[in-house]
Amino acid sequence: MRLRDVGEFGLIERIARAIARGGEPRAARRSVVLGTGDDAAVLRPPRGHDVLVSTDALVEGVHFRWRTQSPWMVGQRALLVALSDLAAMGVRPLGCTVALAAPASLELSRALGIARGLGAVAVRAGCPLVGGNVTRARVTSLTVTVLGSAPAKRFLSRSAAQPGDGIFVTGALGAAGLALARSERRGLRLSHLPPLRLRAGLALVGLATRGACIDISDGLLADLGHLLRASGVGAELGVASIPTPAGFSAACRRLGLDPLRTATTAGEDYELLFTLRPGGPSPRALGQRLGVTVTQIGRITRRPGLRLAGAPQPLLARALAKGFAHF
Amino acid sequence: MRLRDVGEFGLIERIARAIARGGEPRAARRSVVLGTGDDAAVLRPPRGHDVLVSTDALVEGVHFRWRTQSPWMVGQRALLVALSDLAAMGVRPLGCTVALAAPASLELSRALGIARGLGAVAVRAGCPLVGGNVTRARVTSLTVTVLGSAPAKRFLSRSAAQPGDGIFVTGALGAAGLALARSERRGLRLSHLPPLRLRAGLALVGLATRGACIDISDGLLADLGHLLRASGVGAELGVASIPTPAGFSAACRRLGLDPLRTATTAGEDYELLFTLRPGGPSPRALGQRLGVTVTQIGRITRRPGLRLAGAPQPLLARALAKGFAHF
Repeated sequence: MRLRDVGEFGLIERIARAIARGGEPRAARRSVVLGTGDDAAVLRPPRGHDVLVSTDALVEGVHFRWRTQSPWMVGQRALLVALSDLAAMGVRPLGCTVALAAPASLELSRALGIARGLGAVAVRAGCPLVGGNVTRARVTSLTVTVLGSAPAKRFLSRSAAQPGDGIFVTGALGAAGLALARSERRGLRLSHLPPLRLRAGLALVGLATRGACIDISDGLLADLGHLLRASGVGAELGVASIPTPAGFSAACRRLGLDPLRTATTAGEDYELLFTLRPGGPSPRALGQRLGVTVTQIGRITRRPGLRLAGAPQPLLARALAKGFAHF
Repeated sequence: MRLRDVGEFGLIERIARAIARGGEPRAARRSVVLGTGDDAAVLRPPRGHDVLVSTDALVEGVHFRWRTQSPWMVGQRALLVALSDLAAMGVRPLGCTVALAAPASLELSRALGIARGLGAVAVRAGCPLVGGNVTRARVTSLTVTVLGSAPAKRFLSRSAAQPGDGIFVTGALGAAGLALARSERRGLRLSHLPPLRLRAGLALVGLATRGACIDISDGLLADLGHLLRASGVGAELGVASIPTPAGFSAACRRLGLDPLRTATTAGEDYELLFTLRPGGPSPRALGQRLGVTVTQIGRITRRPGLRLAGAPQPLLARALAKGFAHF
C-alpha cells in the first residue's frame, strides 16, 4: 500500500495512531492544552518560563538513504537530532511538530515506520508530538521543530566561553562518522543513533561554574569554531585527550580512514561540547552529575584561532587547525 | 551566483541580512530573548500565556512553480499561509522559524528573494523570524513553524460549533482558485497572495457569543467539513449568499470554470470560516469589529451532513454536498 492509496487525511489518521501506539509522553499530561487536530496546538509552559524553539530537517539522499536506514531509524534520528539542540541549551522539551514531505508512491509502511520511530523518541524524551503537516514531494523529508522551556536566563548559549575555561565533551567522538563510512562503503544497515543528552544539558545549567555549550553536529572542530566565534575567544586542544570509542583507531584504519580526522571532522556525534570556569568539579565528578562520561580536551584562550597540541601526526594536526580557521 | 558558491554558512549569513533589511518586527523587542545564531531561539510569551504552534510547508512543483511565482511571492506566501493558522485560533504571533531545503544549483538571488518575502510579512504581522535551518535537497521547499501566544482558554477551536449557530466567512471566496487557474492555463505570473486575518481572529476571540473557527485552505466545503466533524454537527448553506469577488462568475466562465465549484472547492483563500451563537452582532457590525467584510452563509444544524440550498444549478449543488460527505 502506498501513500496515494490512503489520501492525505487517511495518512494523517494512521500516523497519529502509529505514534499513539507507543504511549503518551508523561510531559503531555501537564503541558498539552490542545494537541493535534486543530489549526494549531496549544502548550502550557511552566509559569514564568521562557520558550525555546529550534528546527531541523532530514532529507532523503542527503541525510539518509532507504538502502541503509530503516524508517524506524529515520524517525528516531529526526527527533533525536532536533532534541540535541534543546540539550545543548540545557532545557526541558515541551513538545514538537513534524512536517513530512513524501512522494505519493512511498510505501505506507515506511511512513508509519517513521511515525513509530518519532513516537518512541517522543515518549523517551518526554516531548509530545503536538502537530504536523503532510505534503507531497519528489523525495521524502522530515522537518522537526522542537519547543522547550526554561526559567528566565536558565539556559546555555554558545557565547559564554571565557579565557581560562576548560573545554569538555560528553561521551566519545567519531563513532557516528565511522558507522556512516562503514555503512556507505559496505552497503550495511546503519544502526548508529544520536544519543539523548537532555539530562546532561539540564545538569550543566545547574552548575555554578557554567560556561558555553553547543552540540557536535558538524564535527568537533567546526562546532568548536562556532562556539569560539560566538564567544570571541580561541582554544588549545590536546589531541591525545579527545575521547574515541574502544577499538576506534584500528576500525578506522581498516576502512582507510584517519582516526584523528574522523573523530574531529566527521560530525553527527551529537555529543555536548561545553566550557566551564576553572576550579569547578573534576571530569569524573562532572560525569556523575551529567549521567555520561565527561572528558576535558582543552582550554579556552584569549588569543583567537585554534591550536591542536600533542598529535601523533603534527602535519595533520596543523592541517586540521588551519582548515578550521578557514571554515 | 548559486547556493553552492556561498556555502551553508555564507547562505545563512546572507539570508539573515536579507531578512533584517526589511526591519525588525515591533514584537521582537518585547518577545525575543535570544534570536538566530544559537542552538535554539528563546522567546518570552506575555506572563501567564499559553503557547500555540503550527507548521506548514510549501514545496516547489506542488505548491508553487518558479515559472509563475517570484521568490518574493513564495517567501511571503510561506509565512502568510502559516500565520493563517494562528489567525484561525484567534491569537497573536510570537515568532517563527523557517527550514529552507534547496538544490545547490539554486540561484542565490532566489533564496534571497524568498528571505525578503518572509521578512516583509514578518514585519507586517509582528512575527519575528527567530531561527531556521538550511539543507540541500533536489527541489526547493520551505517549512514554516509559527508560534503564537494567548491567555489561558482565549483561543478559538474547530470543535465549538453548536446547532443554531450562524456560519460566517470573512472576505470573498474563489479569487485564489481563479488566479491559480488563470496562471496555470495562460502561464501568467501569480500575483494573488493569502490575506492576513490575524486582527479578525483576535477580534473573534473577544466576542461574547463566539463559536468555532477554521481557516479556508482546502476549500469552503472541505474545511467546513473539518469544522462540522470536530464539533459533531451538520450545516445548511445558502449557496446564493457565498461571497465572491466582483466579476467572479464571468471571469470563471471565460476560463471554462464553474463559479460555484471554484468558490467552494478550489481552496487557498485563507479567509476565516466561523460560527457564532444566534443573537450576536449583525454581519455588518461584525465586519467593523473584525476589520474585514463578513457574510453569513448558513446555519449549524443538529442533523449531520451538509445541505446546499438555493443553487442556480441544483444538480451541481447536490453533487458538491454529496462529494463533501464522502470526503
